[in-house]
Amino acid sequence: MNIDRIEAARARIGGVVRRTPLLSSPFLDEIAGRRVLVKPECLQHTGSFKFRGGMAALSALDPEVRARGVIAYSSGNHAQGVALAARHFGVPAVIIMPGDAPAMKIANTRAFGAEVVLYDRESDRREEIGDRLATERGLALVRPFDEPEVIAGQGTCGLEIAEQAADLGITRAEVLVCCGGGGLTSGVALALEAKAPGLRTRPVEPEGYDDTARSLLSGQRERNATEAGGLCDAILTPSPGALTFPVMQRLCGPGIAVSDTQVLRAMALAFSRLKVVAEPGGAVALAAALFHGDALEGDTVIATISGGNVDPAVFARALDHLPG
Amino acid sequence: MNIDRIEAARARIGGVVRRTPLLSSPFLDEIAGRRVLVKPECLQHTGSFKFRGGMAALSALDPEVRARGVIAYSSGNHAQGVALAARHFGVPAVIIMPGDAPAMKIANTRAFGAEVVLYDRESDRREEIGDRLATERGLALVRPFDEPEVIAGQGTCGLEIAEQAADLGITRAEVLVCCGGGGLTSGVALALEAKAPGLRTRPVEPEGYDDTARSLLSGQRERNATEAGGLCDAILTPSPGALTFPVMQRLCGPGIAVSDTQVLRAMALAFSRLKVVAEPGGAVALAAALFHGDALEGDTVIATISGGNVDPAVFARALDHLPG
Repeated sequence: MNIDRIEAARARIGGVVRRTPLLSSPFLDEIAGRRVLVKPECLQHTGSFKFRGGMAALSALDPEVRARGVIAYSSGNHAQGVALAARHFGVPAVIIMPGDAPAMKIANTRAFGAEVVLYDRESDRREEIGDRLATERGLALVRPFDEPEVIAGQGTCGLEIAEQAADLGITRAEVLVCCGGGGLTSGVALALEAKAPGLRTRPVEPEGYDDTARSLLSGQRERNATEAGGLCDAILTPSPGALTFPVMQRLCGPGIAVSDTQVLRAMALAFSRLKVVAEPGGAVALAAALFHGDALEGDTVIATISGGNVDPAVFARALDHLPG
Repeated sequence: MNIDRIEAARARIGGVVRRTPLLSSPFLDEIAGRRVLVKPECLQHTGSFKFRGGMAALSALDPEVRARGVIAYSSGNHAQGVALAARHFGVPAVIIMPGDAPAMKIANTRAFGAEVVLYDRESDRREEIGDRLATERGLALVRPFDEPEVIAGQGTCGLEIAEQAADLGITRAEVLVCCGGGGLTSGVALALEAKAPGLRTRPVEPEGYDDTARSLLSGQRERNATEAGGLCDAILTPSPGALTFPVMQRLCGPGIAVSDTQVLRAMALAFSRLKVVAEPGGAVALAAALFHGDALEGDTVIATISGGNVDPAVFARALDHLPG
């Protein structure tokens, strides 16, 4: 993996993927005690950064292979990203999703025209289901993070961060990334290494699901005790990827873990101060920016909001965490 | 008023005002039966387009005049726009607000450093209070819409719409604008007249407060029966402005009025499909795009979301309008 692959991905998908802005609020700066800039990938097509990777992967396929269709396993955001990318190319998509994924994510994936196959997070291994169906039907498997073209696609978000930071004259900052399997984190880290070396990438995870933070400490890929039951459904992966982990090990600062209460407060502040909708897994980085200042260096922090696909009941819970 | 003044405003404020993106969702296209593009000015600094006008007005003042401070009357969004613009220039601001304005808007205006004076919508005339305080304290009055530099500032939003539509190859569209006194509507209309003459501006208002629609029909400035009690607090002005009305009369298509239920549904769909927070008054144009298709021409509609400063209880009410 290197920057050329990320730039090639951007050349292929730049006209389709949305360039998201960089948002800020003096109220957030005050809470954090430093300048806070937010990259709202919830505003990306399908409501998460995953459309970047989906488009990058599908656009890199041989047209004849792509025409037979694609398959993906996903808790919901990669599902939608691949489903809409497949629709863009007019090819079939089969998506394997956990039965406990948010209703909105399952419904949207189907609405984009994909065939959805549900599985049980605790008893089934989604990779096995995916490999079997791919073989049976001749579909191209688009892995959610451990796939070079997907990492390159997510890296296009890092290119934008590098350019937007440069426009603001920012040469040093911590860049906090919501981290599941590490596709976005490693893609952003690679882009920043090449384009903004003073910006350091930091993976952020929910407490109890901080496999990446623990892996970075131990030097080997650690696993979470469970994938089920967490608030932050989007980023509950078993362990960092075989491709993403070495990149994160080489380029990222230490991981940060945030509590569910901090996540809900960050969602509420994204609502009131930035006017964007963050889902729980998409709000962990903003939570770290706001509530883990002791773990950060420097006077500027850039936080991704990786997605906004949240069911209204969960969002209403977050709004209860607004002060006043 | 002409395009030169709008372009001069952009030259002064372009580095400070945020260029908001143009959003879309296939789910909204499906509801509307045509292509829907959304200009989310809720993502502007202070959470509404009013920061454009505030910055344009303050940046046009003689520095010695500006240094004595500014005064504005506003239901809340102009208040915040002028307050933050005053903070940008380091000058004092006095803001006259109705006592029933959303708590968040009053609190934010104070948090930006302004002195807030509350008045009663039914019994007081805010213009009289503003003129008196301006005279007493030597403050420069920044009118919310009937002020050339404010109209020019709001017109910078129209310049962006013209450019973003051109980037998408759109040469004909209806452009729906949330309309109170007509500052944004007339500014956008002037920008489009010069830069994208195939795009037609349409004012949108809440039912019962459709003074502009009625004025465009009768050919004279009509008044609303009341300014109080409506859901769409941001755009409950008594009548179109003396400066804005002739512009709207010359350039705008017929006005559209939407119901409170349509507004709440549009807010819910902005949440679920665009991941942005719209306040009621900021959602009227999207409501018209989605639910008043019969009143529209052509295959493309561009709707502004003019602001996102909404109290959580009102937002929770909107979320109850989500299907499923």
